[in-house]
Amino acid sequence: MDVALLGLGLIGGSIARALAADRGSGERHRVTAWTPSGEGPRRALAAGVVDAVAGDPVGAMAGADLVVLAGPPLACADLLRRLGSDLRASLGPGATITDVASTKGHLAAIARAAGIPYVGGHPMAGRETSGFEASDGELFRDRPWVICEAVADGDPARVRALALACGARPVELDAEAHDRLVAAVSHLPLITSVALVEAVAGTAGDPAADWPATAPLAASGWRDTTRLARGDVTMGTEIAMTNAAAVAVRLRAYRDRIDEWIALLDAPGGPDADAVRARLAAARSRLEG
Amino acid sequence: MDVALLGLGLIGGSIARALAADRGSGERHRVTAWTPSGEGPRRALAAGVVDAVAGDPVGAMAGADLVVLAGPPLACADLLRRLGSDLRASLGPGATITDVASTKGHLAAIARAAGIPYVGGHPMAGRETSGFEASDGELFRDRPWVICEAVADGDPARVRALALACGARPVELDAEAHDRLVAAVSHLPLITSVALVEAVAGTAGDPAADWPATAPLAASGWRDTTRLARGDVTMGTEIAMTNAAAVAVRLRAYRDRIDEWIALLDAPGGPDADAVRARLAAARSRLEG
Repeated sequence: MDVALLGLGLIGGSIARALAADRGSGERHRVTAWTPSGEGPRRALAAGVVDAVAGDPVGAMAGADLVVLAGPPLACADLLRRLGSDLRASLGPGATITDVASTKGHLAAIARAAGIPYVGGHPMAGRETSGFEASDGELFRDRPWVICEAVADGDPARVRALALACGARPVELDAEAHDRLVAAVSHLPLITSVALVEAVAGTAGDPAADWPATAPLAASGWRDTTRLARGDVTMGTEIAMTNAAAVAVRLRAYRDRIDEWIALLDAPGGPDADAVRARLAAARSRLEG
Repeated sequence: MDVALLGLGLIGGSIARALAADRGSGERHRVTAWTPSGEGPRRALAAGVVDAVAGDPVGAMAGADLVVLAGPPLACADLLRRLGSDLRASLGPGATITDVASTKGHLAAIARAAGIPYVGGHPMAGRETSGFEASDGELFRDRPWVICEAVADGDPARVRALALACGARPVELDAEAHDRLVAAVSHLPLITSVALVEAVAGTAGDPAADWPATAPLAASGWRDTTRLARGDVTMGTEIAMTNAAAVAVRLRAYRDRIDEWIALLDAPGGPDADAVRARLAAARSRLEG
């Protein structure tokens, strides 16, 4: 498979490394990379991780069976919009565009409007580190890789082949369902993590007076629950921008649960121990079940 | 130092192991353990982790320089209440009671009322596993160990010596400040973690219909933000029961932040990207600062 990678950060770089490693198993992929600065691709070429470096996106796509948009969501959307007509002209028959962005509905809408052969993808693996240096050919091993409905003549089999070559588990899900479900399991936790930091450490304009005394007491629980707030700011912003409505729905449901907890803890005479225990036990069993 | 350990689960067992290991460094501790079932102490004695097993709490305390209540908070409170007069009678001069519970104010109040020589302690280290089998002599290494104000004739130097023998960093903090600060950095994250599970996976009585489709998409972000909800239910319940007022204060401040995020995401025409980016960047820098 001839693969064009537009973007070579943590995810794009990890795809390149996984495809390079896959050569040993009989499959042979040819990977051409492009990024705006060209820096990552040059290093990847020198390291033998990609086969070629392209000077522009259209050059990278020439002859590709599969084009992977591997930049941040808004950059991918921009590329898809700008390249719409060029894409159709420079792609061979059966060629398909995919991407790795955290939200899928907005890209599918752009592709649909421009008649681009597109199949959205989302490898569900991440780290709080970023950039080509952080990439890892094992990043996707046994992780779900969502593959959305085909737009125009997009070929889902090619995206499926990419996911399998990266060691991931393909999961078929339409873009709307994807965005609704990841709003719950991925984007809501990002916002609750940020809100937790804001509530405890304060904000830039209103730092919490007791944070300097509190911070040294932070243990692994604090570190884990706030890990997402340490993530990439651009990525977080673009997630919020491209999936705001679905995240807001989840956040309102979440706020209702928080209100219930406030009522429970504020009860006159102290909380009802049985009610607290039942809620904690139920949450625990939901995670196990 | 002659140490009586009343409780030998994750924390008590880890203290026993740390003290046993400390023998190599010149210090010599004699550790007597008691638990209601006596099972952990017998295994610990066989493994050479403790020096003696006592048949009852009063027997364990006889001749002890330091008595460590290492059970769950409510069990410690109960023990302190029941043993009040026995404690005073069986303790030698200068002997001190301490504990390892996650909340400090309620135990200090009981000790004060009964005139028990008490100095509250809280090693800020935890795991989601529990029991003597999970104990680890390195659990407290370089972690803060809060030491509260002395009650009656309690000697903080003995608790300090215990913390140092376990490789921890002693942090002096009065019980009220401790409970206020850990409500923020430890107990609030527990409740937000449970509320997150409830909002996404549903509750026992009202399971979320889309959880079976959502769960397979969960990645490390979900696992980290919900880790505290997988913790010990009894411990969580007792934390909520003994620090409810301080946690409720934090939870209300947190709810205000959640409301701000809902307003931001629900804005007509979509969220303000600059506002989202600024909040994410500020939270990230608060964690680093």
